[in-house]
Amino acid sequence: MKFTADQAETLARIQMWRRDVRHFKREGVTEDVLERLRAAMDTAPSVGNARPWRVIRVEDISVRSAVRAEFERCNINAAQTYAGPTKDAYLALKLAGLDAAPVQLAVFTAVNPDEGHRLGRLTMPQTLRQSTAMAIHALWLAARAENLGLGMISILDPKRIETILNVGADWEFSAYLCIGWPESDDDTPLLHRAGWQTNNGTRWEVR
Amino acid sequence: MKFTADQAETLARIQMWRRDVRHFKREGVTEDVLERLRAAMDTAPSVGNARPWRVIRVEDISVRSAVRAEFERCNINAAQTYAGPTKDAYLALKLAGLDAAPVQLAVFTAVNPDEGHRLGRLTMPQTLRQSTAMAIHALWLAARAENLGLGMISILDPKRIETILNVGADWEFSAYLCIGWPESDDDTPLLHRAGWQTNNGTRWEVR
Repeated sequence: MKFTADQAETLARIQMWRRDVRHFKREGVTEDVLERLRAAMDTAPSVGNARPWRVIRVEDISVRSAVRAEFERCNINAAQTYAGPTKDAYLALKLAGLDAAPVQLAVFTAVNPDEGHRLGRLTMPQTLRQSTAMAIHALWLAARAENLGLGMISILDPKRIETILNVGADWEFSAYLCIGWPESDDDTPLLHRAGWQTNNGTRWEVR
Repeated sequence: MKFTADQAETLARIQMWRRDVRHFKREGVTEDVLERLRAAMDTAPSVGNARPWRVIRVEDISVRSAVRAEFERCNINAAQTYAGPTKDAYLALKLAGLDAAPVQLAVFTAVNPDEGHRLGRLTMPQTLRQSTAMAIHALWLAARAENLGLGMISILDPKRIETILNVGADWEFSAYLCIGWPESDDDTPLLHRAGWQTNNGTRWEVR
């Protein structure tokens, strides 16, 4: 398989227009689209081909409410770590789309899977968590190519989410994802637009 | 920006044909291609828009040799953790392209950057490392779309690599990447072909 310059440019544009989305329409996402998103995760790299990511698609209203309450609690705590105008700026940001996102995924990492037979993990067990992050990114790009938005939420206490979802001891919480049709699209990160953090380039040096 | 079904299919094919490559031709990679790879990392998601990944492109022969010796040391240690036929199977795998890859990148994570102003990191500081993993994946896909191969090496002691590259205390080693023109391409992971670990699907349940 040889890709063309046009195909490489398509990838570059999808990557450029991928955003962390927190503003969703309430319209649902059909199962065939969700199946393509699930399949995108199958393509992610993983240490030893272990594929340690575990996904729970959360439909239960009481579980969604518990996650949202946990986000609100952690977000207020985080706001308290700032003062003055920075605190006001923090509180003005919308940091999660839990209010409206029709699809919500809790993503975990199996931290001691049989799969992969420990290959590549002896000196760097964190490669399992890296694999899950890459699978989330694979899903994220596939969602963008379907014109869906995705927002990743980390303002949560991992242990509490593991308890809310009642997962086994070897599943470590990685992220909570909101997916749905975005209210708008943009080639510039929201945190840059909002003035929180300018969009710096990658730091890359030659030695 | 609305993407078409054809463009989504292009992304899916790039993802499907991305491999961890360890067999490289010795032909070099031009600077314009490398600049597009660097730019792909700029598009990766990052917590608080902090972009904590730090890349050193390693050209110094003595540094490359030190990294390769460190890989050999760690790989022998890893082999000792297996026994019998599994040990033989492990030793038969080629797990790094350090012998031939013309481009080599050491990737680190800044674990306490000013950028992002700590947003999203209070309960989950690991989001910085997730950001770096996603930036590596963004680079990986861009390389595949350029018909380049990339291999990620984790059979290394992070502290020793930090010492070899003499980075500051706030840079944590994330991965060492080999990039170059692949000897062949494939839609199936090498570890599946080699019989080490079958290519399982993503575990995704609905609750």
